[in-house]
Amino acid sequence: MNAEILSIGDELLIGQVVNTNQAFIAEQLNRVGIAADRMTTVGDDRDAMLRAFREAHDTHDVVVVTGGLGPTHDDITRAVVCEFFATDLVEDEASLKRIESRFARRNLAMLERNRDQARVPRGCTVIPNDLGTAPGYFFERSRKYFIVMPGVPFEMKGMMTEFVLPYFEHHPTGMVIRHRTLKTTGIAESFLAERIGNVGELLAKTPGTTLAFLPSPAGVRLRVTTHAPSSSEADATISRIESELRQRAEKYIYGADDEELEQVIGRLLTDRHLTLAVAESCTGGLITDRITDVPGSSAYFERGIVTYSNASKTAELGVPTGLIEQFGAVSKVVAEAMASGVRAKANADVGISTTGIAGPTGGSAEKPVGLVWIGYSDRSATFALEFHFGEDRRRVKERASQAALELLRRRLLHIQ
Amino acid sequence: MNAEILSIGDELLIGQVVNTNQAFIAEQLNRVGIAADRMTTVGDDRDAMLRAFREAHDTHDVVVVTGGLGPTHDDITRAVVCEFFATDLVEDEASLKRIESRFARRNLAMLERNRDQARVPRGCTVIPNDLGTAPGYFFERSRKYFIVMPGVPFEMKGMMTEFVLPYFEHHPTGMVIRHRTLKTTGIAESFLAERIGNVGELLAKTPGTTLAFLPSPAGVRLRVTTHAPSSSEADATISRIESELRQRAEKYIYGADDEELEQVIGRLLTDRHLTLAVAESCTGGLITDRITDVPGSSAYFERGIVTYSNASKTAELGVPTGLIEQFGAVSKVVAEAMASGVRAKANADVGISTTGIAGPTGGSAEKPVGLVWIGYSDRSATFALEFHFGEDRRRVKERASQAALELLRRRLLHIQ
Repeated sequence: MNAEILSIGDELLIGQVVNTNQAFIAEQLNRVGIAADRMTTVGDDRDAMLRAFREAHDTHDVVVVTGGLGPTHDDITRAVVCEFFATDLVEDEASLKRIESRFARRNLAMLERNRDQARVPRGCTVIPNDLGTAPGYFFERSRKYFIVMPGVPFEMKGMMTEFVLPYFEHHPTGMVIRHRTLKTTGIAESFLAERIGNVGELLAKTPGTTLAFLPSPAGVRLRVTTHAPSSSEADATISRIESELRQRAEKYIYGADDEELEQVIGRLLTDRHLTLAVAESCTGGLITDRITDVPGSSAYFERGIVTYSNASKTAELGVPTGLIEQFGAVSKVVAEAMASGVRAKANADVGISTTGIAGPTGGSAEKPVGLVWIGYSDRSATFALEFHFGEDRRRVKERASQAALELLRRRLLHIQ
Repeated sequence: MNAEILSIGDELLIGQVVNTNQAFIAEQLNRVGIAADRMTTVGDDRDAMLRAFREAHDTHDVVVVTGGLGPTHDDITRAVVCEFFATDLVEDEASLKRIESRFARRNLAMLERNRDQARVPRGCTVIPNDLGTAPGYFFERSRKYFIVMPGVPFEMKGMMTEFVLPYFEHHPTGMVIRHRTLKTTGIAESFLAERIGNVGELLAKTPGTTLAFLPSPAGVRLRVTTHAPSSSEADATISRIESELRQRAEKYIYGADDEELEQVIGRLLTDRHLTLAVAESCTGGLITDRITDVPGSSAYFERGIVTYSNASKTAELGVPTGLIEQFGAVSKVVAEAMASGVRAKANADVGISTTGIAGPTGGSAEKPVGLVWIGYSDRSATFALEFHFGEDRRRVKERASQAALELLRRRLLHIQ
């Protein structure tokens, strides 16, 4: 089954909002054997919506529409859906109760515009919204599906997970799509491609299978995709190609699929019963923000210190003022002193640190913007490595946090 | 002039990558009077690309294509562009030199696949790439434009800024589009709509003007858009409606357009010569990560402490163990002790703190997941407020960081 994902909203067309719904919906549809082959965005405009509805519905088995179901005047999707299916609105009692109890729970007075959201196109199946006020609509006519959900990502995700996916799990599509992504960091795309070698040869035995290289600030991802009539065939193909790729680039592969480097670190620390402390200067808390995104991180992460000033590096981490005066705050010795200092203070097994120049100002010929020293300290060794991460402030922070976590990963795994 | 933005890439269709290019390009085009009215994404597939090229080119003045220009086998955009314009490839000397010097600077050996990227469609104007190896292509035929750039956001942004926008600034389109966004937080969409009142009346005097409500975890944004033949007319409309909106919802408006709350805070602290220290538990470094995203934040932000364990709350911030034992780490008194503790330790003017249950585990009937206490302390007052931010871990962190910064903003501005 193929699908088109339609996003509605002027805020998308003027670039005010990044469309994260498309990616989420596409990924979830793949899991139930539905492949999106087109994504389209149009504005809050009747004619553009009707044309997009028609084109998508004519050429696809599944159409997923998001956006324009809110309680304000600019939300016209419900009316256009009614026009498209030549139907009218009818009050849905379950939705009304849901909205009423939502307001009651919060001790808020319900507004007429909220009550109106319980009116839905006649003939649709209502998709309940547990996380907001606007219900979704599900139309099925002779194995063609038209699904309408709010544009608020949080609410849409709830509906996909609770309603849309379970529906297709109970009505299988007969095709299996499998993806496997190996995530690398610390190697450029073209060099990774050289290591991987002849892709045509690698994929020759299994038609319907592709390999893609996807660069990002966090590193290059290798994605294998295969289409097969059965799960076992799909899994066998993925597994063969994954093991080939691992043979060729193992050292650089830190994780697979949705796994983030902070999750890998968490698992490694947990397995080894090790604790971690972090001292950040230029990354400003991003490393510990990432570490604490992992549920259960309190088991191995105990504290982090953001020492943005020189004085705080000395007061919090015991970095000797003499070192800072002689070598500067952005230096190998200060990075080392920060890593060992935070480790000692927190009585942790491992300490990591960052000190660098995130920019846009503060650089010099000798120490340009983008220079970052990353420090590491454990019971047996303390050292720091030099990196250059370009001139964009946020990017410097992101790449530095990734490199610090990767340094920790390789150290924990004894990878040179 | 209208535009269609075309994104190429299987990684987008399977939802592996969130498409941030569309939003950036749309926003930038608006600045030079070009309005995107459609965005389309197709895969690395010749037929789908040709069809999308044709449809977009037939119905739009400007077509912007990104993706599929990389050095690996899955990048076929260049070949399809040549087919579409019935042209062939020619080596571009300037691009080759640029690529060679890029590799030389990094002391890397240049690969044949990198050299090949200097071959471009005959008849296009080359868009230089200062941030990567693939050049872009710019076609102009009788005031119709077809622009092709790499999908790597960083590289595409460089080309937009250095080449595409300057081009249209020198070849004006005759239309002025202006947006103004007022960013609110701490009030739900429907309640904000009630405060704003009759939108039709507000916009009645100026046709071609719209007002949109855009909810997000950081708050609801109000966006005014107007189209006018001149800058002065557009600016007058925006300014009139902005002042109306401010009259009705001033208290909740923390900033405008791209301004982030952390930038507003930075300005307020700078103007008042105040310094800030931060103690985070459940937000795990996210608050200081946001604060240090602002260039120059070292002037007012001196240090932050992430006290994830109870012991670190006592050791780092002087929170009495008795308080934690009696009231629990997630409590009003502990939030207050953290805020005043970090302020005293850093000798800062203001301290803020968070302590809460980010989930998914650790909640109880009395203290459910999503409960967060936010503490504030300055010379004259120390207090903490209770919030409930739902059950998604990342969302709890994001909403808590936003509420903590907003609490600080209102306090600095004496807003009740």
